[in-house]
Amino acid sequence: MLAEIITIGDEILIGQIVDTNSAWMATELNQIGIRVKQISSISDDREHILKALTEAANRVDIVFVTGGLGPTKDDITKKTLAEYFNVELVEDPETLEHVKGIFARYNRPLLEVNRLQAYVPANCKVIFNQNGTAPGMWFYENKVTYISMPGVPFEMMYMMTERVLPQIKELFKLPVIIHKTILTAGEGESFLAERIADIEDDLPAHIKLAYLPKLGMVRLRLSAFGEQETGLQEQVDQFAKRIIERIGVAFVIDEDIALEKAILDKMEGRGLTLSVAESCTGGYLSHLFTQHPGCSSVFLGGGVTYAYELKESILGVKQETLDNFGAVSEQTVTEMVEGALKNFKSDFAIAITGIAGPDGGTETKPVGTVWIAVAGNQKMLIKKYTFGNKRRQNIERSAVTALTMLNTLLT
Amino acid sequence: MLAEIITIGDEILIGQIVDTNSAWMATELNQIGIRVKQISSISDDREHILKALTEAANRVDIVFVTGGLGPTKDDITKKTLAEYFNVELVEDPETLEHVKGIFARYNRPLLEVNRLQAYVPANCKVIFNQNGTAPGMWFYENKVTYISMPGVPFEMMYMMTERVLPQIKELFKLPVIIHKTILTAGEGESFLAERIADIEDDLPAHIKLAYLPKLGMVRLRLSAFGEQETGLQEQVDQFAKRIIERIGVAFVIDEDIALEKAILDKMEGRGLTLSVAESCTGGYLSHLFTQHPGCSSVFLGGGVTYAYELKESILGVKQETLDNFGAVSEQTVTEMVEGALKNFKSDFAIAITGIAGPDGGTETKPVGTVWIAVAGNQKMLIKKYTFGNKRRQNIERSAVTALTMLNTLLT
Repeated sequence: MLAEIITIGDEILIGQIVDTNSAWMATELNQIGIRVKQISSISDDREHILKALTEAANRVDIVFVTGGLGPTKDDITKKTLAEYFNVELVEDPETLEHVKGIFARYNRPLLEVNRLQAYVPANCKVIFNQNGTAPGMWFYENKVTYISMPGVPFEMMYMMTERVLPQIKELFKLPVIIHKTILTAGEGESFLAERIADIEDDLPAHIKLAYLPKLGMVRLRLSAFGEQETGLQEQVDQFAKRIIERIGVAFVIDEDIALEKAILDKMEGRGLTLSVAESCTGGYLSHLFTQHPGCSSVFLGGGVTYAYELKESILGVKQETLDNFGAVSEQTVTEMVEGALKNFKSDFAIAITGIAGPDGGTETKPVGTVWIAVAGNQKMLIKKYTFGNKRRQNIERSAVTALTMLNTLLT
Repeated sequence: MLAEIITIGDEILIGQIVDTNSAWMATELNQIGIRVKQISSISDDREHILKALTEAANRVDIVFVTGGLGPTKDDITKKTLAEYFNVELVEDPETLEHVKGIFARYNRPLLEVNRLQAYVPANCKVIFNQNGTAPGMWFYENKVTYISMPGVPFEMMYMMTERVLPQIKELFKLPVIIHKTILTAGEGESFLAERIADIEDDLPAHIKLAYLPKLGMVRLRLSAFGEQETGLQEQVDQFAKRIIERIGVAFVIDEDIALEKAILDKMEGRGLTLSVAESCTGGYLSHLFTQHPGCSSVFLGGGVTYAYELKESILGVKQETLDNFGAVSEQTVTEMVEGALKNFKSDFAIAITGIAGPDGGTETKPVGTVWIAVAGNQKMLIKKYTFGNKRRQNIERSAVTALTMLNTLLT
């Protein structure tokens, strides 16, 4: 069963907001076995809406439409839906009562524009919106289902979860879709592809493998489609197992979670603590860890030691080390990681120092030069990288590389 | 001039990633006077790609395609583009040299799949990708321009900024659009709207005002449309001046830059330095500062003091203060900011401590309780906030609120 998601309104088209609604809907739909074929954002324009509906109806079984249902005059979705289905707009008494109730509760006068919210195309089944005034609408015509919902995220989400998804599951016989993600770090997409080429060739037609690369990490995602769960999960697990064995140390975890979260979980399971000494990453690495709830059982904190003086006072890096070798050097990163272990009393520590750029490079230490040290359990890994001249990229790559090194040390 | 953005690949369709690329592109295109008519995410499927290209070409003047250019076999964009234009794929020698160079630099063997990256449809002009192996491609056929770029955000962004947008501006006669952004902090959208209602009423039809709210900040963007620049800039500047005078202390800067960058610039101009003591924001505030080139002349660094012990050892917070009042208290945040000033020897300091959530709240200190202190130049501001139970939002709001407080202290 295929679906398309159409978002109506200008906010996304002018870049003012990012379309998080569709991502959320896509996740929910995939989980119940509905594949999303296309996601479109279109303008609040009659002709454009008609065209998008026609195109979608030719492609999929269910068309989800969000947005364009507010009370202001630029919202023409309902009128256009009525035109599309060639029906009149009629007043829905229940919706009118609901709208009146909301305005009464807030002691606001009911304006004509608000009363119009209770008008819906004559052929729809109203989907009750308990969080707002705009009703959802369910249509079925020529074997295609159309579901129109308000664009306000929590109104849409509630309507989907409480009303639309249960109804869909009841009405349609859905296939089973199973996803399994293998998180890898430290190897590129093409290297991995070559490593597992024969396993990929063995995949049956109903199991697909996708490579999802991102800054030094690649997610391998197996997706299996079938009629029933029995057997499917086992099949996917078997292929996952073969892939994991093959890729060796690049394997991090067989869950769809962030690399730093996988590390936090691993360390928490072993009762280990972690601290950091950041220079060029400037707090980004700490932020990666601390964005995850519950990180405090592992992550103690650390120093963002941008200035020389802070490297000395917080981490105990020797002034002569900085004078003789510079802040971006093997000697300094070693003292940084040792200082973190000692001063912050953690089991493991990460230190990063480099030239994030775009300025500050020299001939021997060009922009993008980064030293990373990870230490703990009597072991230490130190590596030098040259990541290039993009500041943001340097910061992100340094952090991800440090995570990969720590993961190796923990293996 | 109208544009459409097509993103190829399954990541968005299964909800694994949110389409931030398109939002960024839409913003950039709107700024140079190109309206985005539709944004679509489609699957990595030959027929679907062909259909989407045809539909887009019927609607707009420029079709932007991102994604589907990686080296692995699930990427069929190039082949399909060649089919769409009815041309062969040919090897581009410059791209091949570039790909070889990248692999040589990282001491990796060049695989056959990598060599294939240098193949492009015969009718395209290659857009050099200095950040990756997948080339961009520029097509022009039947009065429609097609621009295909890799989906990796920083590769796409660099290619757009450095190559595509300048080229578009050169080739097409675009209307003159002048934007002027006024950054405000600390006041809500409706408050600002009420304050400047009469100025907004005075705006002529060709100047629009947009409110762009985001987490405690509101950007007011004036956009003027015209045939030529003469007179337009002066008009916009006059309205901006009236607005700035009216909004008073909520005004931060009349540039479209980040709040922390405005603060860095202001402090650099006065030769002031800054340090931070972060608990619940966990490095995020430091990261906000350190993502900006040249921040080191102002930002010295600080402590990410997640654990009690680090609050004591790095910042000198007294153990009895933590024991008696807890980590999230006026007393602790005061000692944190004083410790930062003293230990890090900066002119100004920010301290933040709170319960980011979703767990860890108590009856008297619910999740979202945050204490923020900013100090410097013999002055100190301390405030308590309750931001609610969303972790990510708490972290971001805490950081932005701290920035707003520092901006006030600097005014």
